[in-house]
Order: sequence, then C-alpha cells, then structure tokens
Amino acid sequence: MRELRRDPIVDRWVIISAQRAQRPMTRFVEKVIAEDTFCPFCENNESSTPPEVLALRDHGSRPDRPGWSLRVVPNKFPALKAEGELERMKNGIYDRMSGVGMHEVLIETPDHDQALAALPVDNISDLFMTVRSRFNVFKEDSRIRCAQFFKNHGHEAGASLEHSHSQIIAMPVVSRLLGEELAGSKTYRAKHGSCVYCDIIRDEVVTGDRIVSENDLFVALAPYASRFAYETWLAPKKHSPMFESSTDGSIRALAEIFKDTVGRVDYLLGSPPYNLMLHTAPFGEPSCAGHYHWHMEFMPVLGQAAGFEWGAGFHINSVPPEEAAKALRQA
Amino acid sequence: MRELRRDPIVDRWVIISAQRAQRPMTRFVEKVIAEDTFCPFCENNESSTPPEVLALRDHGSRPDRPGWSLRVVPNKFPALKAEGELERMKNGIYDRMSGVGMHEVLIETPDHDQALAALPVDNISDLFMTVRSRFNVFKEDSRIRCAQFFKNHGHEAGASLEHSHSQIIAMPVVSRLLGEELAGSKTYRAKHGSCVYCDIIRDEVVTGDRIVSENDLFVALAPYASRFAYETWLAPKKHSPMFESSTDGSIRALAEIFKDTVGRVDYLLGSPPYNLMLHTAPFGEPSCAGHYHWHMEFMPVLGQAAGFEWGAGFHINSVPPEEAAKALRQA
Repeated sequence: MRELRRDPIVDRWVIISAQRAQRPMTRFVEKVIAEDTFCPFCENNESSTPPEVLALRDHGSRPDRPGWSLRVVPNKFPALKAEGELERMKNGIYDRMSGVGMHEVLIETPDHDQALAALPVDNISDLFMTVRSRFNVFKEDSRIRCAQFFKNHGHEAGASLEHSHSQIIAMPVVSRLLGEELAGSKTYRAKHGSCVYCDIIRDEVVTGDRIVSENDLFVALAPYASRFAYETWLAPKKHSPMFESSTDGSIRALAEIFKDTVGRVDYLLGSPPYNLMLHTAPFGEPSCAGHYHWHMEFMPVLGQAAGFEWGAGFHINSVPPEEAAKALRQA
Repeated sequence: MRELRRDPIVDRWVIISAQRAQRPMTRFVEKVIAEDTFCPFCENNESSTPPEVLALRDHGSRPDRPGWSLRVVPNKFPALKAEGELERMKNGIYDRMSGVGMHEVLIETPDHDQALAALPVDNISDLFMTVRSRFNVFKEDSRIRCAQFFKNHGHEAGASLEHSHSQIIAMPVVSRLLGEELAGSKTYRAKHGSCVYCDIIRDEVVTGDRIVSENDLFVALAPYASRFAYETWLAPKKHSPMFESSTDGSIRALAEIFKDTVGRVDYLLGSPPYNLMLHTAPFGEPSCAGHYHWHMEFMPVLGQAAGFEWGAGFHINSVPPEEAAKALRQA
C-alpha cells in the first residue's frame, strides 16, 4: 500500500507507505552501519541499486558501471511510486490520494568516505545542477505539484546509509510547510507590495547581525526566529521564485556559499550531523512568482525534537541567532 | 535572554531561551546518563531541585523532604520565566514578545527505576489530576493563553534524565499545532454543524478497524492519517473541549486507557521510547467550546524525523494505522 492521507482536522497530508518496511519496525533504528558492511553506493557496486536514471560519467563509461562522479537512482524502497493515475478518493470524512510520485537518491561521490561539503565546488555545483535537471523533468508531469530535495548527513540527522547522498521526493500535493510559506508570503505581498524574503534579505544585509556570509549572488543568514541552534538559510539575493530556473552562475554561487557555511559549522561545532532542505515554488503555479523566493535551509542536528516540538509545533532554541551568526562569521 | 519570536513568513512562534544552555551546545546530546550518576529526582535528593510548588505527600511529611509520591517543581533551566509583564514589540518586519510563562517538571515517582505506565492506575490518575490542578492555576493568569503538558520517555524520545517525569510549559501564545486544530475544527463545525473529533470517534467505533481499545469513557485509536508508526490518540468519547474541566471519573478512565495502551505497545514493540502530549483548548476562549475536543497523542519513537519531515512538514509512515491498531488490539 502506498497512498496519501489527509488529516481531517488540520490540512496535513501523510504518506502511508507500507512497502518501505518489509515488516513493521520494532525498535529504534539501528546505529550507523559498521565500516566493513557492504555499501550499495560505492563504486563497483552499481548493480546493487536500481538502474540509474542519470549519471555524470567519464567519457565512454557505461551506465551502472564504474567511471562516474555522481549517480541518480530510484530509491530501492520508494515512499511513492511513479506509475499510475492520480486518483483522489473520499470515504466519509476522510480524503486520500493514490501514492503517485517519484523518490530518487543522488549518490554524490563514488568515494565512501567523502563528505559532500569536502568535495570541490565543481562537484557540489554538479549536484545542484543535477537537482535542477531532475526538477525540470518532474515539472513536466501533470500529476506532480512539487518536489522536495533534502539531505540527511549523519545518523542522528536520519541518514540510514553513511555514504554521502541526498534525495528528491516529487509529490502530488503541495507540502504543508511550503503551503504555509506560500500563504504567508502572499499575505505579506498583498499588504506591503513586496516579497517578504527580499525584504528580510535587504534588512539583514544592512544590519549585519544575523549574516553568516555573503557572496555576489547569495547570502547565508541565521533567521530571526530560528527554530534550531545555528539554523542557517542560504538565499539568492535577487528575487527568484523557482530553483529550477537558476542559471549556472547562480548554482555555482550556491555551491560556494554552501561549502563555506558547512565549513564554518564543522569548524565551530565539530562536524555535526545536519539536514539540508530546498524550499522552492510548486510547479505550474505562476501566480506565486511575485511573492515566493526559493532558498535552502541548513540545520545542524545538535539535539532532537521531543514532546514539546511534536505536541505543540513549537521550538525552543537556546542559541540566539545573533550569537550563532557571530560565532559562524568568526569561525 | 528569554523571548518569543515570530517568523515573519509563516505564523510560527519560537522560544529563544539563551539561559537554558550555560554555553552553546557543541555536539549531539550525550547518551543517557549512567546508572550510577546522581539523580536530582530521587527520594532524599529533594534539595537538588528548586522548591516544590505542589506534592502528594504522606501525612505529616514536610515540603522538599522525603515522603512523597509525586512532586511538581519549577524546571531548573526554564524555557520561559514566570515574572514580568507581557510585552509585545515590533522591530521592522519582526515581532517579538517577552518570554513570560511557566515551565514545571512533574516527578512521577520517588523510585528511579519505575516507569510511569508500570505504576498502579491510582498513581497515574494522581499525575493527570495534578496536571488538571496546575492547568486550573495557570488559566487564572491573564498573560497565559495555553499550556502544553508533555512527557518524553527514554533518551531517543528526548528525555535528558531517565527518572520518570513529565513537563508543563504555560505560554503567552497559542501554539502552532493547537492553532491549526482550532481553525480546522472550527471550519468543520461551520460546514457540518458538529465536532470533527466527535464524528471521527463515532465513525471509528462503528467500523472498528483503527480502534486499539475502549472503556466506558475513552477510546484509544490509530488516527487515519497517522504521522508515526503506532501513533495512538486517547480521547474522551463525550464532547469535552477542556482537559482541566474533567471529572475525577474521567481522569481515572484516562489513566486506565493510557496504562493499557502503553502496555500493548511495550508488549508488541519491546518497550520503545515514546512521547505523550496533551492537546486541549486554549484558556479563556469559550468560543471554541463547540468545536474543540481535548485528547492525548501518544507516539512511540521508532525512527527519527529528518530532512523530509523538517523540510516539507511531511511525514512518511510505513505502518498503516489499520495494521498498527490490529496488532495493538491483539497484543
């Protein structure tokens, strides 16, 4: 069974994907896989993954064989499935939708021990350009409304395999947080006539207190209401609703500021686990182009969400973003 | 510094509480405290906590001395502070509020090795009656708009001390999830003329597929759009907006169904860590009495939230709630 279900009280869709687990989980996820365990993402083990949908390869090398720097493969245990009609069904007070979507894994390097941020800027650019390319494919599928690119680095950040990788899930609904951002930024635009992200970026660059770093095209900043200690957003300075419309130059500047940010965090906090998430406009909704502004959110994992966060949707952050930004600027 | 800050894009308040950490966290929270470490919650160590605000004591015993079965003490590192005026300030596009509120710890037993659900129903009732009593105190404070009772059981669920305890945070804003539930249930009432929770409970009791257990006054059910595997909601069958108005009989029935639910989960899943959260109407808002319905949400911690959940506000659940409920019914 793979389907999306809507909570009848709050507008929250959940993916119910029974095939992901061969059987119900019975205990907390096992600790990180031992060094000597077989890794399906390593060079020479290409046959252990589903066939690649895209790869950056040495000239003349063959698909699903060695000779690559980056591979994109379908997730072996996908949360959503690519085939089938998108059907929406109602059963009394409950809404559901067929579990249509794509779930892909981006293997960022053939080297098991290489972390993404330690790769050259060229390779990090390659990753983000590949994400752009996949988004441009997904947006042509009329069943798909948005895609989420994300990276879980380290076991405590949710990575089940330690070999550096990230993921894309393309979905038939607009995700909850994106929906809230779209609504909030639309309201702001109606009231102030401008993009709230552009206004934040301009104000923050002027005051400087929450700026971590800048380059010509991007800013890295600690958001005013940071949920997590050392949370950092990476945003293009120029108004841009859709990540997948980024130029090569913009992607390269993103790769540079990402590498710089992770370097600062690693130096200051001893290479913590982290989550990285892309927030970008939904597909086929040109009406949000005036008020939405894509960005990436980077969150070191230093604690864990518990009852208060899950129960109240409320966060307690013990490091004021001004202090976090100052420490990261100096790192 | 203790203040609440509002995200200028989405309506999300965050507590920035720099005093909670003596210094910035630098690594992932340390593993659970060793058995032989001093425990401030044990009998005879009463002087290690701030003075108790309430306790269930043997007749004749003195405050902050042995002879108790349950103690309520202020959190030693409170996220919010009880003193001071509630001020709301605006600075350009940013809103903030003084960090006024209460943060209390409920020490559920003097015995270091006793888990809450293993206590007799009388003691579990005592805990919930104490929560009711604290809520009735907090609601008299005009600065406070809602309170969150929650329990983190086990290190992976966010507990920093292993001695059984729970917490209450009383806040000057309505928490985000509660706000969403209020809005959603209000919309439902306007459309259908009834309480969405009452309708869910009635439908679920009739079909039975997602029912875990029942007693005269309460139902334990796996919600249709469960975010987490084996997520279970405990709800009064009779429409009741405010937990703190519960009768003694209702609280006892809650204690019974809670103990029963944890017993089933422990048997089926090997005593996993869990989070327990109370969802109840905000204080001083009688207008929500018709559409809001208090309940508790119980979530075993079997995995961890990662980029997709934080990035998209989206959950993937690999155990359909019908299967979860069936397995728990049979446990």
